Amino acid sequence: MCGIFGVFNNNNASKLTYLGLHALQHRGQEAVGIAVSNRYEINVKKTEGLVMQALKEQDLNNLKGDIAIGHVRYSTSGKANPQNIQPFLSHFYKGSFAIAHNGNIVNVNELKEELEKEGAIFHTTSDTEVFVHLIAKAKDTEEFEINLHQNDREFLPLLFSAMKKVKGAYSLLILRESQLIAVRDPYGFRPLVLGKNKQGTLFLASESCALDMVEAEYLRDIKPGEVLVIDGEGLRSYFPLGFVDKAHKCIFEYVYFARPDSIIFQDYVYEIRKEMGRQLAKEKPIDADVVVPVLDSGFLAAKGYSEKSGIPLEFGLIRNHYIGRSFIQPLQEIRDLSVKLKLNPVRQVVEGKRIILIDDSLVRGTTAKKIVGMLKRAGAKEIHFLISSPPVISSCVYGIDTPTKEELIASTKSIEEIRNYIGVDTLYYLSLDGMVKSALNKKNKGFCVACFTGDYPVL
Amino acid sequence: MCGIFGVFNNNNASKLTYLGLHALQHRGQEAVGIAVSNRYEINVKKTEGLVMQALKEQDLNNLKGDIAIGHVRYSTSGKANPQNIQPFLSHFYKGSFAIAHNGNIVNVNELKEELEKEGAIFHTTSDTEVFVHLIAKAKDTEEFEINLHQNDREFLPLLFSAMKKVKGAYSLLILRESQLIAVRDPYGFRPLVLGKNKQGTLFLASESCALDMVEAEYLRDIKPGEVLVIDGEGLRSYFPLGFVDKAHKCIFEYVYFARPDSIIFQDYVYEIRKEMGRQLAKEKPIDADVVVPVLDSGFLAAKGYSEKSGIPLEFGLIRNHYIGRSFIQPLQEIRDLSVKLKLNPVRQVVEGKRIILIDDSLVRGTTAKKIVGMLKRAGAKEIHFLISSPPVISSCVYGIDTPTKEELIASTKSIEEIRNYIGVDTLYYLSLDGMVKSALNKKNKGFCVACFTGDYPVL
Amino acid sequence: MCGIFGVFNNNNASKLTYLGLHALQHRGQEAVGIAVSNRYEINVKKTEGLVMQALKEQDLNNLKGDIAIGHVRYSTSGKANPQNIQPFLSHFYKGSFAIAHNGNIVNVNELKEELEKEGAIFHTTSDTEVFVHLIAKAKDTEEFEINLHQNDREFLPLLFSAMKKVKGAYSLLILRESQLIAVRDPYGFRPLVLGKNKQGTLFLASESCALDMVEAEYLRDIKPGEVLVIDGEGLRSYFPLGFVDKAHKCIFEYVYFARPDSIIFQDYVYEIRKEMGRQLAKEKPIDADVVVPVLDSGFLAAKGYSEKSGIPLEFGLIRNHYIGRSFIQPLQEIRDLSVKLKLNPVRQVVEGKRIILIDDSLVRGTTAKKIVGMLKRAGAKEIHFLISSPPVISSCVYGIDTPTKEELIASTKSIEEIRNYIGVDTLYYLSLDGMVKSALNKKNKGFCVACFTGDYPVL
Amino acid sequence: MCGIFGVFNNNNASKLTYLGLHALQHRGQEAVGIAVSNRYEINVKKTEGLVMQALKEQDLNNLKGDIAIGHVRYSTSGKANPQNIQPFLSHFYKGSFAIAHNGNIVNVNELKEELEKEGAIFHTTSDTEVFVHLIAKAKDTEEFEINLHQNDREFLPLLFSAMKKVKGAYSLLILRESQLIAVRDPYGFRPLVLGKNKQGTLFLASESCALDMVEAEYLRDIKPGEVLVIDGEGLRSYFPLGFVDKAHKCIFEYVYFARPDSIIFQDYVYEIRKEMGRQLAKEKPIDADVVVPVLDSGFLAAKGYSEKSGIPLEFGLIRNHYIGRSFIQPLQEIRDLSVKLKLNPVRQVVEGKRIILIDDSLVRGTTAKKIVGMLKRAGAKEIHFLISSPPVISSCVYGIDTPTKEELIASTKSIEEIRNYIGVDTLYYLSLDGMVKSALNKKNKGFCVACFTGDYPVL
Repeated sequence: MCGIFGVFNNNNASKLTYLGLHALQHRGQEAVGIAVSNRYEINVKKTEGLVMQALKEQDLNNLKGDIAIGHVRYSTSGKANPQNIQPFLSHFYKGSFAIAHNGNIVNVNELKEELEKEGAIFHTTSDTEVFVHLIAKAKDTEEFEINLHQNDREFLPLLFSAMKKVKGAYSLLILRESQLIAVRDPYGFRPLVLGKNKQGTLFLASESCALDMVEAEYLRDIKPGEVLVIDGEGLRSYFPLGFVDKAHKCIFEYVYFARPDSIIFQDYVYEIRKEMGRQLAKEKPIDADVVVPVLDSGFLAAKGYSEKSGIPLEFGLIRNHYIGRSFIQPLQEIRDLSVKLKLNPVRQVVEGKRIILIDDSLVRGTTAKKIVGMLKRAGAKEIHFLISSPPVISSCVYGIDTPTKEELIASTKSIEEIRNYIGVDTLYYLSLDGMVKSALNKKNKGFCVACFTGDYPVL
Repeated sequence: MCGIFGVFNNNNASKLTYLGLHALQHRGQEAVGIAVSNRYEINVKKTEGLVMQALKEQDLNNLKGDIAIGHVRYSTSGKANPQNIQPFLSHFYKGSFAIAHNGNIVNVNELKEELEKEGAIFHTTSDTEVFVHLIAKAKDTEEFEINLHQNDREFLPLLFSAMKKVKGAYSLLILRESQLIAVRDPYGFRPLVLGKNKQGTLFLASESCALDMVEAEYLRDIKPGEVLVIDGEGLRSYFPLGFVDKAHKCIFEYVYFARPDSIIFQDYVYEIRKEMGRQLAKEKPIDADVVVPVLDSGFLAAKGYSEKSGIPLEFGLIRNHYIGRSFIQPLQEIRDLSVKLKLNPVRQVVEGKRIILIDDSLVRGTTAKKIVGMLKRAGAKEIHFLISSPPVISSCVYGIDTPTKEELIASTKSIEEIRNYIGVDTLYYLSLDGMVKSALNKKNKGFCVACFTGDYPVL
Repeated sequence: MCGIFGVFNNNNASKLTYLGLHALQHRGQEAVGIAVSNRYEINVKKTEGLVMQALKEQDLNNLKGDIAIGHVRYSTSGKANPQNIQPFLSHFYKGSFAIAHNGNIVNVNELKEELEKEGAIFHTTSDTEVFVHLIAKAKDTEEFEINLHQNDREFLPLLFSAMKKVKGAYSLLILRESQLIAVRDPYGFRPLVLGKNKQGTLFLASESCALDMVEAEYLRDIKPGEVLVIDGEGLRSYFPLGFVDKAHKCIFEYVYFARPDSIIFQDYVYEIRKEMGRQLAKEKPIDADVVVPVLDSGFLAAKGYSEKSGIPLEFGLIRNHYIGRSFIQPLQEIRDLSVKLKLNPVRQVVEGKRIILIDDSLVRGTTAKKIVGMLKRAGAKEIHFLISSPPVISSCVYGIDTPTKEELIASTKSIEEIRNYIGVDTLYYLSLDGMVKSALNKKNKGFCVACFTGDYPVL
Repeated sequence: MCGIFGVFNNNNASKLTYLGLHALQHRGQEAVGIAVSNRYEINVKKTEGLVMQALKEQDLNNLKGDIAIGHVRYSTSGKANPQNIQPFLSHFYKGSFAIAHNGNIVNVNELKEELEKEGAIFHTTSDTEVFVHLIAKAKDTEEFEINLHQNDREFLPLLFSAMKKVKGAYSLLILRESQLIAVRDPYGFRPLVLGKNKQGTLFLASESCALDMVEAEYLRDIKPGEVLVIDGEGLRSYFPLGFVDKAHKCIFEYVYFARPDSIIFQDYVYEIRKEMGRQLAKEKPIDADVVVPVLDSGFLAAKGYSEKSGIPLEFGLIRNHYIGRSFIQPLQEIRDLSVKLKLNPVRQVVEGKRIILIDDSLVRGTTAKKIVGMLKRAGAKEIHFLISSPPVISSCVYGIDTPTKEELIASTKSIEEIRNYIGVDTLYYLSLDGMVKSALNKKNKGFCVACFTGDYPVL
């Protein structure tokens, strides 16, 4: 769960990357890094924290150059190891390169063991470092050297060789002294889009909302399995592992992760998310007074449900904009403090009403239980809880930070048990077919739905 | 523009105040302070910053006691003088008291001059300090000493004497060693509500959303002109300046300032704000494709407009949750950066559409102009900009931090000029009558509308 | 225990004050403040910490003006109340003034009570604030108004009236918009010197080492009881309480507190401190191998002892320049950690030797005990511990932060008991006469020796 | 210019390392790191800053284990790259190891190039990383595998192979899961001592003053070319490169760098430094009134000079204990501000006197010039400047951070030119023979004097 952003051919490359990463902040809040090339050497600045809090003007001024890549990293449990912050900058006998990675490599342990036996020393606990060593140590790369542009003959065979060995999810940006390279794994798990501004600067980003931030236009997706090289002689596209018939795009990006104002996988998140709500209304019509979204996650599905059902949407839960973790021990007299710091019911909307409460997903169930309790204490008469995606029963191994299987409420409890636990009158999950149909009725085909089914396309 | 919160009779008084102030954070982000009495002495902690970032667990643990008051302070221009952070704690010959103030005193200069001639030394530049000196120096207080409960004979005459001299807006909380006192000026400019939890702890707060946070029930408003004393012998209410016929509650609290999940001035903000939108639809029906709110301020008015007009509401502008001021100089190629860091248009919603854009107020016009530009670049066909309040033409002198008259766009430009400046097809402001009617058709009567008319009820 | 510094007529006034305060840092490490007048208004910057760590270049640039005063404050127990940091800036009906105080007022409680009855509100717990209120509230000042320069008629009668009421120790600097005023109490407890640089800028400082820092020449002491006014019309000297026959200068400044490179009380600290060591050699000759000072405090007395006795001085204890409090709990296996972090014996010097260990004073005895233990473990054969001042038996009430009487080892134990406790072969304190004679054989007469005798000159 | 410290077999290993590093703080102030093994895995904490400021109690509590190594790093120009902070922790196919290095590798560029060609990726710009890669990639290690204790057969051949390739100065500590290994290069450039406390804990340190801090006794030096392995089966010593006839210990450690209370190279720094002063008195007797050291560097040489010559030593320059870099631009009216912040002349000692000023070395000459100016302005009649070491004419390549040759005043100017530049009556440097003789008349033989001669023993 990370965001990546790249710029080619703009003297404000580091500042534009800073802006682009800010727009991708929802993809990672733990740490941020930017690498810039001035066509002679590559400099990096990496730090923990949010983009606009952690990076200072002086940092950006020090990052001179016209090609840049950046990375925001998701906060998993515990404090980050500073050495794991990306981009990783490496120097080897063919020069320097920096790499930024969104995704997760599944055969990391096998590859690591192999590399260590050859004398590799790992400095991070990140799977991304495997890519670095595979590139630096690549041998027998002749098979990849044919039909390459002359600028690409030095580095690309090494990269292709690495891609051949790596299994899993990777959208990569690689910065060399004079090149920007974008890579997407053959399954296309994670998104990666290409854009361009009026001055001709090219951009790469996890989501199109980052293109909006820098006033660039969305051109197209990087394709599954594609390696796109950008340098002074233009753009060149390679498919070193062959063309892939059926991609496995992560449907959870549409359900929850991507920003609603983004285009990813060639379609509008906003529309698909609303469509999931409409589909929910078709599958599970309910006689109620009001549709209330869990903010902000359930908002668009609730809107779709309201449109389709005709039941009015009201904001029965209001977000406090000044959240932040409280350190204080929950007071005995204040129940559900952690949720209360973020959300508050609007009694006027809730009191005496039959409520359809909508959220986009249900992972652990603890927060939902607290929200439901809060609504009941505010006077809700009935609560029908609808989820615009199926039960999550398996952990993601391709880069979404889902909890372990044991913590996933739907992997250990029946739906009736969950309904009881959360304390609602109705609990309904959107069907797998319904979810996929909502996303499919466009240009898309081929989603990874492993977290809902346990069927992993590659392991 | 501040928030105040008080607790009586709870051993977690400081922690509850911390939570209550967090719920009032929208009323002031510059600084926070809490004063607590352990029935023997009063301790204070004051600091710059947001409640949950600036106060540490140790701070709260150090604030032992069962009566507390707290204050959040609004960020006006420039960095705060730390000495101006409230509550102010003072020691004088009749003991100690702490005071927290929401509002603004209008005859502060006359009072200050008078007090300095008598030897008073001012340590802050806050108008609130005038109250402190007036209390400490009050003489000839015999007129107020009759008919007081014996617990009140020492301090209240001094307070009443001070109230007699002060003109302006004040909702006050005063903490003495064993008493909590709530005061609201006779005009009732600023809100102040009383609540109680199941354990019998009493609470005072600027808005009822803070009562929700501590799981207390809203009991009633403190009345204009009321002095409410809470101590071990119960609650006692006084009206030292007589009963007031017609209050002047700040209508801007309903329009913009208060949180939508609050009850203030005895009514729901949520409903009144939606009603203003419905009223707008009555006054200015427009043939358009979609209603788009400026988030979050215009959201409820847009919802009201959509309900009344039948034109669908869509979220054509999405907020970035990770805002924060950027330090970087706007890049030439990125227009309207400051707005872009917070809002992004959803092209799918906007492109080719006739848009009714709704916000709650229009003060300077600079942000609106940038938002409109952004929507146009995203492909909007027409933009009709409706404001759910009348033009702001005068600065508030009662505690809302409006810009100076010169900066208020409506005080220097005609509506047509503003429409041209912002670049919209239509610009319409809700009528004064329409606004007041939206708020009035409830228990309320008597609003201060000085910022829309220039008629100040007291100077 | 504080240091004060003032500058008149220099456009770099705040930067020169910053430098002067750095030279006085040994007099106070807790907090620092600077007030500057630009002849129109007075600005102040106050902060916790050391001068060069706490004040930033921007702070000094913001303090524009050509008259300044500054203050460094000693760290007593616990964390400072930020409101107690000096200079105090006050605004009253005759303008503004800032005040910086070194010393301690002994009748502070009586004066405070009186002032509070007249409506004074105290904002600090500092005795210095009493001066401020006495000035602001001074009445019946006619007696002081005669024979004053016209520039002095407004403010000086108020100051003189305050001085008449205050008992105790005060060296004061007062900054008005266009005047710098230096005041020393009639007993002359604390030092205060006047200096001038080649450009004609005038300086006031607690010690002459601060004049050296700004390349100013020492001119003279401010006299006990003197009020010196400096403004555009020159220097004017007043003695509002009459001339004082016999001053009570603090002899502890010579013994311990002042810097060895300073002139105070009209004499060189360096020479007097060495003379105390010579006197010690006369009073207590000892047959030993080496004289070892406790660094840095006992160094000059040790040098004097060595000169007089002919026994070589060696540095048997070496200071670590990188001290700083350690937070870690003393490990069982490491004895006397707190001392070990600062001092280490030089085994070559110590092993097998009969040592004369010299320090300037012995207050609690705990550190001395640890040092002695350390020297013994390094192989010292005999340790004769000589102190270049008499036993401290009473707390100072005039501004030196001595511990309470109970904590003073010499107030509860006999010399033989102390010798046993510390674990030395000999313990000898310089006689009271010997100490005073060492300081007296110069221009000085009249010392306060209350901490050695318990006879307080004024209470 | 670094300090290293190690602990074996103590459950407080990290806290003891923290204390030991504090005692070595003079060897490096830029950054600090500690690595600890709990016999199962190795954890590291590294940070910029001074030991006692940068490491928090929680940091040490997190570093559980009973074997530890630590490192303090010298501040060279510019801000440190955080990745260069030692110890370096590496994971490879034979487990993990952490390494801390004092010294400098001279053939680093050749080795790096070779390693990169084999696929090595360097993550730091530190020469120490070369050691890490050489160990991880060592092949053909059979020659070293004979006659090794079975615990040593896995790792030591790799280390020996690396030592065989590396040229230059290295005192190393290597931490493995269950072993502590100490290494000193065959020339013995940098010191490394072994100690033991009463509980049997073993310690390794750059200087013996760090043993004193943890109450351990100095046992012996690690010998030039020695590899000492410490583990559960005792201590084992190897000399993989054979025994070395003539060591080249860094004489600058004695002249300037080591602490005066340390034993290094088997002798007392205190005594040798004094002997250099005595030798100076023999070589250059001068008729003068007083010997004044530049504090603290020249102190012991001045003491030796005074002893030998009979001319009294006085402290004509006093150090301010509260130094710290000032940020403010030097004011025109304050000359030599940077020196003045640290040192102040004692006028009484200096005025009208013929002074012998003594320092331990003269590198750039700029500070000396300022000190001399300060003494002259304080009234010195004559200044004879003696240096207790020869002119520094070449940069050190073995780990002392001397300036470049161009910045060394003695490499570009004659002694007469330097005398003129500094502005003294006499300038004399101790002869090379005199310096070496002062250090030699003990157990020592074989010093590196390359900085004084330009003859580098290994390149």
